Amino acid sequence: MAVRAAVAGASGYAGGELLRLLLTHPGIEIGALTGNSNAGRRLGALQPHLLPLADRALEPTTPEVLAGHDVVFLALPHGESAAVAEQLGEDVLVIDMGADFRLRDATDWQRFYGSPHAGTWPYGLPELPGARAALEGSKRVAVPGCYPTAVSLALFPAYAAGLAEPEAVIVAASGTSGAGKAPKPHLLGSEVMGSMAPYGVGGGHRHTPEMIQNLSAAAGERVSVSFTPTLAPMPRGILATCSARARPGVTAESVREAYEKALADEPFVHLLPEGQWPATASVYGSNAVQVQVAHDAAAGRIVAISAIDNLTKGTAGGAVQSMNIALGIDETTGLTTIGVAP
Amino acid sequence: MAVRAAVAGASGYAGGELLRLLLTHPGIEIGALTGNSNAGRRLGALQPHLLPLADRALEPTTPEVLAGHDVVFLALPHGESAAVAEQLGEDVLVIDMGADFRLRDATDWQRFYGSPHAGTWPYGLPELPGARAALEGSKRVAVPGCYPTAVSLALFPAYAAGLAEPEAVIVAASGTSGAGKAPKPHLLGSEVMGSMAPYGVGGGHRHTPEMIQNLSAAAGERVSVSFTPTLAPMPRGILATCSARARPGVTAESVREAYEKALADEPFVHLLPEGQWPATASVYGSNAVQVQVAHDAAAGRIVAISAIDNLTKGTAGGAVQSMNIALGIDETTGLTTIGVAP
Amino acid sequence: MAVRAAVAGASGYAGGELLRLLLTHPGIEIGALTGNSNAGRRLGALQPHLLPLADRALEPTTPEVLAGHDVVFLALPHGESAAVAEQLGEDVLVIDMGADFRLRDATDWQRFYGSPHAGTWPYGLPELPGARAALEGSKRVAVPGCYPTAVSLALFPAYAAGLAEPEAVIVAASGTSGAGKAPKPHLLGSEVMGSMAPYGVGGGHRHTPEMIQNLSAAAGERVSVSFTPTLAPMPRGILATCSARARPGVTAESVREAYEKALADEPFVHLLPEGQWPATASVYGSNAVQVQVAHDAAAGRIVAISAIDNLTKGTAGGAVQSMNIALGIDETTGLTTIGVAP
Amino acid sequence: MAVRAAVAGASGYAGGELLRLLLTHPGIEIGALTGNSNAGRRLGALQPHLLPLADRALEPTTPEVLAGHDVVFLALPHGESAAVAEQLGEDVLVIDMGADFRLRDATDWQRFYGSPHAGTWPYGLPELPGARAALEGSKRVAVPGCYPTAVSLALFPAYAAGLAEPEAVIVAASGTSGAGKAPKPHLLGSEVMGSMAPYGVGGGHRHTPEMIQNLSAAAGERVSVSFTPTLAPMPRGILATCSARARPGVTAESVREAYEKALADEPFVHLLPEGQWPATASVYGSNAVQVQVAHDAAAGRIVAISAIDNLTKGTAGGAVQSMNIALGIDETTGLTTIGVAP
Repeated sequence: MAVRAAVAGASGYAGGELLRLLLTHPGIEIGALTGNSNAGRRLGALQPHLLPLADRALEPTTPEVLAGHDVVFLALPHGESAAVAEQLGEDVLVIDMGADFRLRDATDWQRFYGSPHAGTWPYGLPELPGARAALEGSKRVAVPGCYPTAVSLALFPAYAAGLAEPEAVIVAASGTSGAGKAPKPHLLGSEVMGSMAPYGVGGGHRHTPEMIQNLSAAAGERVSVSFTPTLAPMPRGILATCSARARPGVTAESVREAYEKALADEPFVHLLPEGQWPATASVYGSNAVQVQVAHDAAAGRIVAISAIDNLTKGTAGGAVQSMNIALGIDETTGLTTIGVAP
Repeated sequence: MAVRAAVAGASGYAGGELLRLLLTHPGIEIGALTGNSNAGRRLGALQPHLLPLADRALEPTTPEVLAGHDVVFLALPHGESAAVAEQLGEDVLVIDMGADFRLRDATDWQRFYGSPHAGTWPYGLPELPGARAALEGSKRVAVPGCYPTAVSLALFPAYAAGLAEPEAVIVAASGTSGAGKAPKPHLLGSEVMGSMAPYGVGGGHRHTPEMIQNLSAAAGERVSVSFTPTLAPMPRGILATCSARARPGVTAESVREAYEKALADEPFVHLLPEGQWPATASVYGSNAVQVQVAHDAAAGRIVAISAIDNLTKGTAGGAVQSMNIALGIDETTGLTTIGVAP
Repeated sequence: MAVRAAVAGASGYAGGELLRLLLTHPGIEIGALTGNSNAGRRLGALQPHLLPLADRALEPTTPEVLAGHDVVFLALPHGESAAVAEQLGEDVLVIDMGADFRLRDATDWQRFYGSPHAGTWPYGLPELPGARAALEGSKRVAVPGCYPTAVSLALFPAYAAGLAEPEAVIVAASGTSGAGKAPKPHLLGSEVMGSMAPYGVGGGHRHTPEMIQNLSAAAGERVSVSFTPTLAPMPRGILATCSARARPGVTAESVREAYEKALADEPFVHLLPEGQWPATASVYGSNAVQVQVAHDAAAGRIVAISAIDNLTKGTAGGAVQSMNIALGIDETTGLTTIGVAP
Repeated sequence: MAVRAAVAGASGYAGGELLRLLLTHPGIEIGALTGNSNAGRRLGALQPHLLPLADRALEPTTPEVLAGHDVVFLALPHGESAAVAEQLGEDVLVIDMGADFRLRDATDWQRFYGSPHAGTWPYGLPELPGARAALEGSKRVAVPGCYPTAVSLALFPAYAAGLAEPEAVIVAASGTSGAGKAPKPHLLGSEVMGSMAPYGVGGGHRHTPEMIQNLSAAAGERVSVSFTPTLAPMPRGILATCSARARPGVTAESVREAYEKALADEPFVHLLPEGQWPATASVYGSNAVQVQVAHDAAAGRIVAISAIDNLTKGTAGGAVQSMNIALGIDETTGLTTIGVAP
């Protein structure tokens, strides 16, 4: 019997990507689709690429509309998920694609988001040590941020194996869909095409504490993170370039071995053959993560680079992957490692 | 029992897209993958987005390698298909994604391609009147060119209904993958990004006789075609803007009605609601065709516009759709109308 | 003594491009810069590429602020220029970069813009027959629309020489800056990158009557225009593909000769050598127009294609060129035919 | 009297950009233009954006052709400059835009370029301490690499003021023109659009020793550099994100002060106001460098970011700036700080 899923926030990029995936998921029946400012509009006008849903109309995001589903996905602005989630039964699987329940530290939340902390839910990055067990059978899932997904998967093997000093330096380039669909001048095509630009420099980006949380857990000690996000002239994709000083005695071989071991059984994280480097085009529309790592002996650093699709593995694909685990079905159902390229 | 398929020319863009589709086609088992200059290389290095095939090696394109398959796809340069096809048995389904067998008129072939005409195979654009019947059970299929696919689907309803004068004016914009993977200076990213440029202006493009063939068949009289292709700064997609003078008495209503009737039952061709226009982003990676039509009363013309993905519906998706029909399985198997957007 | 120029609407794309040109114009001193919603803001925050003006603040668009200048450029939304222009003295050169004074026919204006017609000013496309004389010494200039600039320069030689039937078919691709800086969802980078899409199809675009006006004047008879604009994934540039049925007796030679004759002395319009076609990248940031023309004998049509930078020759460069003529200084002052490429 | 300049390698991107600048340089007369594989071809076919030079033909790169000029620019592949320079008189100003004479350490050269070291010429980055004096009156100039230009200008103030630990971590994104005009599969538009990808990871990029040379000189001690270049989907521009651990006692104020002091008198390097970050679009086609710096107290690092146009300040503009100094004319002649945006 099909699992019935509702999507709150179906008019945005995260919601649209989620619907793209759910449409081909064999175990899911798509139920209510909601959106507040767009309630009443045809989905065909808002998400013209989702042809099979073109004639569906958006409903308002209310408890009544969301009732009667087995799974409810929340693709809402930060800070709005808690209020909606409270009104859903404890036996409903609620998957929050926003930030509200990602952080364990209430002080971090308060500092970066400026509102009271709503709580902490099992974290939907199954590849991290211990994460799968926490997701199995859970009725609540906090989907990770897109940058923390790319960064944590690139660096956790180095930290888990004790190879890297606890000071990570990360520069990541993201496609513009990561900034959402609300129109702002700096996100206009005229502004972004032909341009690379940083933002949130110097520790201000809200994904920083989430990266620290993940890497510190892998390292078993507090890891500091210097994180610089940049906006790249492409619709999708994150390329995360991550490095840390190598601990004494680390060699190219020990680094390679640690990554091979950590990622060997992962269905979506693919350590590339030596000499081949990730490209975001290769994971376009797929749930795959391409990872490569090098030991720069002259600079004394481990450099790990990952490429993901920010909307797929970085948001909606990660949500579906965690849903599969929570529901006890095969983790890869409805997901692919095949990108759309060129 | 799975149908076993070989792909000759698996290292190019058409071959790569075909493999992307065949990988998720439930009735297909992927057999030999060949490529002459790249024989021996890992597919992971050539098509890094096709993760499940990363460790497959390319073989040379020989009769021995291609033997023992139920279907052989030819993604070869123009003029090379006939020699390979001759060596394949008559009971093997051969699907040519090149131009060799598209034209009925040997003189046209000779004039535009400069070599002897190899013959004419059933034409793989099922939506054209009579095309499906010719494909059913056929052991040979000529996949249409990408521009003719977009143009024919935009204009045949007008011609089939006798609404348009037999002089079509077509301007189409194509993503760069239509120009192939062989590196040439004018196809460098530095050259194409930020630029629109025409080519083959004035009747010289090889797809012109194919459009004339299709539109003339629909009209029941010779249709002339003025065709201007342009290269657009995007990897995929064709937007075809097609117009012809409206015959006397034609109205917006009669145009709309003709298109609704002609396209009503097509699984992949979608006539958009009035007021909504096609965008190539909406069909990215999908086999869908978005069509819209207007009657410009002041200028006395019918304007029909279509958007396709040149690699999917325009090449590899069209090939799979025709294969399905030839094999007698559901026409939509392994294909989607869901685009990857934004 | 320097000519003192004010710019009303200095925060938008047209205003920014105008300032870029005026900064290197040897005869101009930049005076007041105004903008209503952005009044009080530093130009450095609004136009970060105009480093020499970074510390200038925008003032409100009032008669007092605009007083005391020799030239006032109006880069305002359509319909707002008339009210401002009325308050400027008759001895001030007023150059309207909006649409308000372009059309001669009040009915056309009313139909396409929905407001009362403000009047008609000398038309700032000096290359059209008779246009230069009307601009010399004029105190009012209506700068043409970007599409009409590209289209008129591509087609007027054919019509002036009597080579073409009076039914033009035009498909043009424009960079996104033509749609302005006001943020709208369909102009987001995420939406436009990787996509081509038409708009205003079927005769609805406001630039249509302006094209008809220009081409009819050249032809000496009413020319109908079927115009389809498309949005291309690039910040700047217009590629206009224009065609019309050739009159009896027209040959490739007679077409070439007509274009060579019509464009021979133009400093900015460059007829390319045979075999070379325009590309918008080649005129990026320049006031040049690249034109090429072909006679498609099989289809019986003349195909003329032009490439311009929509912000330079299509807007601000055209404004400066007309200003030079109106002021009696060399027409090319402060303008270049050198593009920024690749 | 005009200075007569020859350009060896006029068909590539560096040569084309140099010609774009020299065409508007008031003191320069453009002499011989050479190119070996393209000798005999019209420049209009090779550099269609340089309209004033369209009818010039390329000559072969021989001593005879290059003789009789006051300045000779070498835009040749690495390793070819020395042989040409030897044949030019000692009184001719030779400006090498390649790598041959940038490095002081012959061992570094040998290791990264694999050929014997040709020598060391005065280094054309005038903003570095002591560099201007070495350039004044010099007859030989080595133009810096594009990445070292961006990185050195972002970080030298921190090192010169003793604020940073001698371990720099740099991730830079470059437009594709940095990879040159020779067609290679991974540089095709189809491959680069929509994709970010690293290359030369782990210390292998040839610009690394040049960065170490510059930063070590500023610091007065050996600075190690971890450098990761990435290819971004844009034709031009470099965004360099550079960081290093802050020395004890460093504050946001001391960092700001050091940068303001170091860059105060520079005509091309612009420290942005606090809160505004560089964007490559803002320096498109200009010789300006936008710099911003932050002190990330939580991570204990100084983060400095610069944006340049890789072809202008990063190559040809830097060459002209150094030429001006060497010739004793105003350093800013023929150069601009105004970008072409959007």
